[in-house]
Amino acid sequence: MNAAALQVGRRLPRLEADQKLSGRARYTADLDLHGMLHGAILGSPHAHARIVRYNISKALAAPGVVAVVTGADCPDGKMGPFIKDEHAIAKGKVRFVGEPVAAVAAATPAQARHGCALIEIDYQELPAVLDPAQALEEGAPLIHDGLAGYEKIYDAGSSGNKCCRTVIEQGDLAAAWRKCDVVLDQEYRTQPQAHLSMEPCAALADIDPAGRVTLWSANQSVFRVQANVCECLQLPMSRLRCLTPHVGGGFGNKMEAHVQPIVVMLAIKSGRPVKLVLSREEDFEIVRGGHPFRFRVKTGAKKDGTLVAREVDVLIDGGAYADDSPGVLAFALRMSCGPYRFMAAKAQGAVAYTNKLRFGAFRGFGQPQIHFGCEQQIDQIAVALGIDPLEFRRCNALRPGETWFGGQSVASNGLKECIDKVEIESGWRRRSALVASPGKKRGMGMGTTAHISALLGTGAIVRMLEDGTIVLNTGATDIGQGSDTVLAQMCAQTLAIDVAKVAVASPDTDGSPYNWGTTASRVTYTTGRSVVAATGEVLRQAKDHASEMLECGVADLELRPGGKIGVKGASGLEVTFQAISRRAHWRSGGPLVGSHTWVYSQDTVDPKRATAIGNPARSGVFSFGALVVDVEIEEATGKVEVLRAWSAVDVGRAINPQAVEGQIEGAFVQGMGFALTEEMVWDGARLSNPTMMDYKAPTSADTPYEINSYIVEAPEPDGPYGAKGAGEIGMNAVAAAIANAVSAATGVRLNSLPLTPERVLRALMEHGE
Amino acid sequence: MNAAALQVGRRLPRLEADQKLSGRARYTADLDLHGMLHGAILGSPHAHARIVRYNISKALAAPGVVAVVTGADCPDGKMGPFIKDEHAIAKGKVRFVGEPVAAVAAATPAQARHGCALIEIDYQELPAVLDPAQALEEGAPLIHDGLAGYEKIYDAGSSGNKCCRTVIEQGDLAAAWRKCDVVLDQEYRTQPQAHLSMEPCAALADIDPAGRVTLWSANQSVFRVQANVCECLQLPMSRLRCLTPHVGGGFGNKMEAHVQPIVVMLAIKSGRPVKLVLSREEDFEIVRGGHPFRFRVKTGAKKDGTLVAREVDVLIDGGAYADDSPGVLAFALRMSCGPYRFMAAKAQGAVAYTNKLRFGAFRGFGQPQIHFGCEQQIDQIAVALGIDPLEFRRCNALRPGETWFGGQSVASNGLKECIDKVEIESGWRRRSALVASPGKKRGMGMGTTAHISALLGTGAIVRMLEDGTIVLNTGATDIGQGSDTVLAQMCAQTLAIDVAKVAVASPDTDGSPYNWGTTASRVTYTTGRSVVAATGEVLRQAKDHASEMLECGVADLELRPGGKIGVKGASGLEVTFQAISRRAHWRSGGPLVGSHTWVYSQDTVDPKRATAIGNPARSGVFSFGALVVDVEIEEATGKVEVLRAWSAVDVGRAINPQAVEGQIEGAFVQGMGFALTEEMVWDGARLSNPTMMDYKAPTSADTPYEINSYIVEAPEPDGPYGAKGAGEIGMNAVAAAIANAVSAATGVRLNSLPLTPERVLRALMEHGE
Repeated sequence: MNAAALQVGRRLPRLEADQKLSGRARYTADLDLHGMLHGAILGSPHAHARIVRYNISKALAAPGVVAVVTGADCPDGKMGPFIKDEHAIAKGKVRFVGEPVAAVAAATPAQARHGCALIEIDYQELPAVLDPAQALEEGAPLIHDGLAGYEKIYDAGSSGNKCCRTVIEQGDLAAAWRKCDVVLDQEYRTQPQAHLSMEPCAALADIDPAGRVTLWSANQSVFRVQANVCECLQLPMSRLRCLTPHVGGGFGNKMEAHVQPIVVMLAIKSGRPVKLVLSREEDFEIVRGGHPFRFRVKTGAKKDGTLVAREVDVLIDGGAYADDSPGVLAFALRMSCGPYRFMAAKAQGAVAYTNKLRFGAFRGFGQPQIHFGCEQQIDQIAVALGIDPLEFRRCNALRPGETWFGGQSVASNGLKECIDKVEIESGWRRRSALVASPGKKRGMGMGTTAHISALLGTGAIVRMLEDGTIVLNTGATDIGQGSDTVLAQMCAQTLAIDVAKVAVASPDTDGSPYNWGTTASRVTYTTGRSVVAATGEVLRQAKDHASEMLECGVADLELRPGGKIGVKGASGLEVTFQAISRRAHWRSGGPLVGSHTWVYSQDTVDPKRATAIGNPARSGVFSFGALVVDVEIEEATGKVEVLRAWSAVDVGRAINPQAVEGQIEGAFVQGMGFALTEEMVWDGARLSNPTMMDYKAPTSADTPYEINSYIVEAPEPDGPYGAKGAGEIGMNAVAAAIANAVSAATGVRLNSLPLTPERVLRALMEHGE
Repeated sequence: MNAAALQVGRRLPRLEADQKLSGRARYTADLDLHGMLHGAILGSPHAHARIVRYNISKALAAPGVVAVVTGADCPDGKMGPFIKDEHAIAKGKVRFVGEPVAAVAAATPAQARHGCALIEIDYQELPAVLDPAQALEEGAPLIHDGLAGYEKIYDAGSSGNKCCRTVIEQGDLAAAWRKCDVVLDQEYRTQPQAHLSMEPCAALADIDPAGRVTLWSANQSVFRVQANVCECLQLPMSRLRCLTPHVGGGFGNKMEAHVQPIVVMLAIKSGRPVKLVLSREEDFEIVRGGHPFRFRVKTGAKKDGTLVAREVDVLIDGGAYADDSPGVLAFALRMSCGPYRFMAAKAQGAVAYTNKLRFGAFRGFGQPQIHFGCEQQIDQIAVALGIDPLEFRRCNALRPGETWFGGQSVASNGLKECIDKVEIESGWRRRSALVASPGKKRGMGMGTTAHISALLGTGAIVRMLEDGTIVLNTGATDIGQGSDTVLAQMCAQTLAIDVAKVAVASPDTDGSPYNWGTTASRVTYTTGRSVVAATGEVLRQAKDHASEMLECGVADLELRPGGKIGVKGASGLEVTFQAISRRAHWRSGGPLVGSHTWVYSQDTVDPKRATAIGNPARSGVFSFGALVVDVEIEEATGKVEVLRAWSAVDVGRAINPQAVEGQIEGAFVQGMGFALTEEMVWDGARLSNPTMMDYKAPTSADTPYEINSYIVEAPEPDGPYGAKGAGEIGMNAVAAAIANAVSAATGVRLNSLPLTPERVLRALMEHGE
């Protein structure tokens, strides 16, 4: 095989890199249509209030204003991935400050905003509930009066302000606790983190006179957009076509609906195309954030260093709408034992509605939060038992063949190799020799993690055109992580051609096979499986043609690099894909087409099983990771600085090592922001820092001078070329590892995030007393 | 079954009627992109010349001009459906007046035209050949020096200026001629007709920085556009995505490339989106016309009224490029016996290259021309034998079970019913009682015809979305004839739902299944077959789910109107498509999808068989038609006026009778234009009437006050709900029937078209002598 055949494992820049670097890639905000109007949103000034009356006459009379929509225009349809609790726009009630309560379409964005300012709404204020614990108390003001009647994908005991509740249990817990020689039991809190995609949420809707709507938007799933918009607007799904231009990041924020339903309402009302691009402030205030957790972790171990029992109890603030909260809760609980062996464990928790912005999917899907407590306790127990924390983890790590918490089998497991890798590369055993800068303390900390990468359905259609080139259509959105490139590499590898011969079609609900979405670290594994299978089907058809053309049996044929099929042992006897495709054009009536659909599990979400993702399919696809960080803490200020990081991730097989390293590095920095500086701060009911100035995300000046990424390859037997997911795992253990390093450096344990200088300094001072 | 289930056979306005009536349907000319330039074309002033030198510097310096392309910019790739003889733009040589020789992209259309005017090209003029017979003479100037080396789909004896030659023969011709009691042998000429679609040809190309091109254009096959552009520009097909907005008519003119390759060249050269919309004059001058025929027909019959033998010899002017000429020749020959039984027959012919605009596919594909001679001779023989021409046809008509000329079996045959219908409805037997207006002569004439409606490949993908609504994706372009509506009706019928629940996706080479094109009266039959099969597959899957949901066997289930599946004999036991789809979403990972590909014949075009379409597959799908017209001829002027027409067409099954009637009426009027007034006139090498003022197409004032359309239904066994094609057949016999009526009224026979007042008056005067 020559170089052209080695597409999997190639370090390749993204297929679309040129477009993005030249500034010519078109995002939703770059699209324009004839007669297009611009939309703007009016947000609620109240955290909780009934809407008594709208007066839109002044707004309608304002220059350039063409249409105004409010809850009075929107049908009673409701959307939501787990609980259908959310209208297209506030209807009857507002439930958080900033919640869209009206919207305007006008000739210019400024006129639309001016129109919003002229809308008068009478509210009847209601007492707001801003704390999740208070929300669950008897007599708390009800945020969703009609919760019992809402449609739910599964019933997880919603009532009052309790959005859902989940319990997972395994083993004889009472017996397990009795065996423990050391037990830790602590409480932790993590803060809400903003997704902060480079591209703010945006949508453009166009309606034809027959009533069919075309909707371009920034999203992570063109199919979820279609489902959400149609559910809340009670629009037949066949009347909505959803498309995805380039997308500038998602991190979970664009998985479910944002402004799309409102933009469609404006287009229907005005009869004109309408585009709406959120300002950065609005993108902070009205879309969604990562969940704040309050949780208790209890861990027990034997003197010999064997982990025995764990209990976790979590309370999650879900904000005003359920969104992905039930999923985040279930997943966090399911991952709460980490990649370790326990004799028994129990994880339980609840999500509470509050009068705040909804919280939803965020890279890690609950793991960065739960790990912050769980992985600190692992460290603390190791220290308590006088065992090296790394060695302690290695000894308790799930071994290949062992099952996950809940009983799920684990097909491939490179955890030990990850631990070994970071141990060696970081110089872990020599860490006591590290010298701190003057006025600083220095320490190394670590964490391990795992992440699943297979959920729900995905398809692929591969077409070999008459000239032998390939178009790959999957419906998967490349949100910037590089999935188009990776999927094209798999397709090219299967056909032994250069990846340049493969074009990737953009997602389109009319023309793409179904894809649940770019979420849950799933595209490489799940869509990759479909791509490899669909490409294999094209190859099978090509071989059938070749066998007739070369007059030999299919078994005598071999695939040759550069797009040829030849007779084994006869180097001159071969036909090109082009010749095959031209023949197929007349014989088969068009291009060679292969299609494949792959579904993770029929019972991933079973309405009869209350715990949903908490009780997954029998087998899982797990990526593993281990991380070491080297940090310094300035004694005078409490400022934590990460000097170096070593992150090893078992991705099964790195289809594009460059893209995997990008994921590891990006996840580390986002995790570092979570650990140290980022926090969405509510001042009462109002988000007080919805700007890039006030919200402290790490800049390049804040990133460590060394982020060392290591790819470990424990091939997944059913994975496409052995691959597993890589999108989230690099983020999970960052905050925990940094907290462990801070403790190693200072002896101080912090149970709340972020580890701001104020918080660290206070702890240092308390510790010093 | 309630009304919702009766979708097939419903008289329905087009799905997109509202858009078109409100003027809001978007055609290619209505599309705009950011930074878009406008293109203009410079045509050759010479009919035949070598291009010596380009000077584009003045054009490039002109205001607003961004890019100029000439043959120097275009690769040596060549396109063509049968013979690859055509560059993207003239390269090395020009071969007809008006042939695009350079093109300009500029900020405005006016600036682009101004830029064209500033291009200087030195030519070396060559002798031109404008007559097809002269073109075939020894020593004629060669139009394609490299013809022998061109790639050909099949070799049909091209050489010199002979584009191709075809012969079809059946039976013992010498013996047959010996049995004839009456023999007619005459020569005929037909004129070139313009397609005259309401929408002129147009294209818009956009190129992304990665080099992938998106091309919107007015076309009859988004896949032919892709193939043509990529062949002549040597672009990998995967790098070109073709889309089709609304299209305003085609009639064959938009089946192969027109301005698309030039627009793509301009987009690549300028790096900007470029749109080019032809003016009406350009649309006449540079795209293609319907073929002028010169032919001899010899027909023999026995005294008892039995047709015995026929010979046809055709010379077709193909113009400067082969385009569809080989197909038109082969098809005309194959249809030259009409729907009659002959003991023996021979049809032969050739296409000659000339230095004129290319001629190509036109509604009827050679039949209106060949019928003009053949159907007049049928009349003349009947008259000579003293038999009523209608009765003569009925007696000689192919009966069900008899084979077509060439041996092809005919599955369904409603010809006799068509003849019976027009006989009764027109009052044929009482025609001698018709009274002419003062100064006019009046007569009735008739003709019969057949047409095939199945060629090459087509696919369909049907998706049932989570709410039970349907999206249908076929890749077939609705060029205004109503195929979207008809295909949606078939889909709706199969699922027993209202057609409003079915949305039709527009053609997209990235997302649509392959479809050879909207041509050859093929969409209803071929794409319909795929639609019905793909929809059936969705229904099968839906029933599998329903059987689990209702806990019964699939055999116990029944489809119920309105989108439900129930248990037979238990009216309350049923599940909706919505419930099934929601279940499928989690179980099958997405919408229920059915797809199907159907290919007419593997050997329709066999490279080893020189006659190609002349030797088709073993079985054919034939529609049949019979037509009677009532005409008056003004004696003083020779003007022919059609008063009434009765056209009966066997379409197997009329999926949408309103659409079928539209086809019959439209075809009649287009055929009437062919018969009486329309003619593309060359003054030397230059088309002299390329305007709506000078080219005489019938207006509503010219159409008869009665066009009576009758639908005859002889169901095609394998047809979708029994349907066959209806797009072309109504045009085939119009000119012949009018000529027969003129003869009946005046005793004059005319062998050249059109039957202009001058020509008719001269014949009347000669006849009167």
